[in-house]
Amino acid sequence: MKLLNLDEVKNITSIGAGPIGGGWTAFFLSKGFRVTSYLHDPSEKEMFMKIVKTAWKSLEQLGLSKNASLKNLSVTSDLEQSLEGAHFVQESAPEKLELKQDLYNFMGKILPDNIVISSSTSGFMMSDIQKKCSTPERTIIGHPFNPPYILPLVEIVGGDKTRKDVVDWAFSFYKYAGKAPLKLKKEIPGFVATRLQEALWREALHMVDNGEATPEDIDTALINGPAPRMVVQGQCMAFHVACGEGGMATNLDQFGPALKWPWTRLEAPDLTKELRNKMVEGCNIMAGNTKFEDLVSSRDNAIVKVLNALEKK
Amino acid sequence: MKLLNLDEVKNITSIGAGPIGGGWTAFFLSKGFRVTSYLHDPSEKEMFMKIVKTAWKSLEQLGLSKNASLKNLSVTSDLEQSLEGAHFVQESAPEKLELKQDLYNFMGKILPDNIVISSSTSGFMMSDIQKKCSTPERTIIGHPFNPPYILPLVEIVGGDKTRKDVVDWAFSFYKYAGKAPLKLKKEIPGFVATRLQEALWREALHMVDNGEATPEDIDTALINGPAPRMVVQGQCMAFHVACGEGGMATNLDQFGPALKWPWTRLEAPDLTKELRNKMVEGCNIMAGNTKFEDLVSSRDNAIVKVLNALEKK
Repeated sequence: MKLLNLDEVKNITSIGAGPIGGGWTAFFLSKGFRVTSYLHDPSEKEMFMKIVKTAWKSLEQLGLSKNASLKNLSVTSDLEQSLEGAHFVQESAPEKLELKQDLYNFMGKILPDNIVISSSTSGFMMSDIQKKCSTPERTIIGHPFNPPYILPLVEIVGGDKTRKDVVDWAFSFYKYAGKAPLKLKKEIPGFVATRLQEALWREALHMVDNGEATPEDIDTALINGPAPRMVVQGQCMAFHVACGEGGMATNLDQFGPALKWPWTRLEAPDLTKELRNKMVEGCNIMAGNTKFEDLVSSRDNAIVKVLNALEKK
Repeated sequence: MKLLNLDEVKNITSIGAGPIGGGWTAFFLSKGFRVTSYLHDPSEKEMFMKIVKTAWKSLEQLGLSKNASLKNLSVTSDLEQSLEGAHFVQESAPEKLELKQDLYNFMGKILPDNIVISSSTSGFMMSDIQKKCSTPERTIIGHPFNPPYILPLVEIVGGDKTRKDVVDWAFSFYKYAGKAPLKLKKEIPGFVATRLQEALWREALHMVDNGEATPEDIDTALINGPAPRMVVQGQCMAFHVACGEGGMATNLDQFGPALKWPWTRLEAPDLTKELRNKMVEGCNIMAGNTKFEDLVSSRDNAIVKVLNALEKK
């Protein structure tokens, strides 16, 4: 089986009437694809179209691709019909494992075996979802971040039976379609972004539980502190650049002991030499040849743009 | 003792030659204050001025206050002289407890007792810093977030001996000066923002340690996923709005069991009815009378502005 060339992907089937299915539908339409959306029940159409049209307003502001139009949308509640002529399938059905397994069983038989099927699931592993599918090699997870029509991240990971070149193809396809894909190293619960967010969320719940902060305090702290920097530099590069010329090495060598301080309820891993080196090398790769001063000034310029855009000054 | 009226604060003393002291100096200058900066060693002046001038470029882009000028800066290495005529002191000396205790002992004797002294410390409690100070009532923590010249957050908390009205005064003063202050409910290690950041950071280190992600994966996930939303809505309001009309109540009642899932290494607190209600009420207060659709559309508009400002589309 030969996977499609990226420019052969014209027709996308989006499965699911909820905010994720509707969000993907709007996103792919905004990029000029034809989209057929499967709704389980025709009565969901009104709510679904409201989601699509709401998303469309933001997508227009981000700039539509040539030929992008809401007219390229078809909606059906006939699953088999929705899959006809599909070059790519984005599945955002309800988060019920058996339901998804049956769906992949059905799709696996109907769709040509070179058509990639990608699940938006946040809670399941593809190794489980693909269990009843007769053609599991082309099934992967492509997990978006809410709201899926505007946030660029898509986390990609295959299951036990997924072919490696399908993972690579999905990475290239999402990039081609205008997303920021991330290929996961392993199937782990919560993937990468949700794990990070969940650690933060649980610490927030602890603080509210202990009367240390209100939900409003949590949000005030995030919005005015870490967030405007994190949208510009992730936590690793933020620490790399905050530590001056010495970068991440200085951070870990000098502040490593702080990992034992009670600065969160989460116990840190042991800072082995191996972990230290992985962190330092990773940041050096990201920094590339850019000089320290330029890392600082590009960070600051971008934060200023963000604050100005939000009229926060 | 009578605290100053806010508009009586004209002269600020900033203590410390590092990135935090230099950042505060530039920030207060940009708001039109006269600033006297104390550097422990005259040889630090060149490095210090480089920090101030780098910060100034960003502050110019955010917009300077009337009368703001680098000419309103004096630099001295005479501590007593640096405190003469000060209406407010921002202390960003090295993070060594004994050094700070001695400094507060000295400042506590020299400065009139109605002049508020605020520490930028990230690692100590004011109850410890103020131990040797003879006038501890007016000493507080005012902890900025790096880079301190552009990020709005300042976390405020007093020590055991701090007068309550000094905490309120500091809150009003930082707000008046253009910051986004947050009054902490309790003295807790790491305050609020660093605790949240530290939970995320430790989970990131665990993932790198286990070969689940590289530092680059962590940053890609944050920058393209949670961050563009978090700069607009903190984690609490993000979940409130993501759950539709039902808001945070729906989130906790439906997804509460996910707190037991292994989505991070951090154990969540028990979701008692009391905690659930605190979260729900907090989000309802933040939402105010704004309708659900308007919460969504203002979120989306702001994310679009951020992505457009960063040319991420």
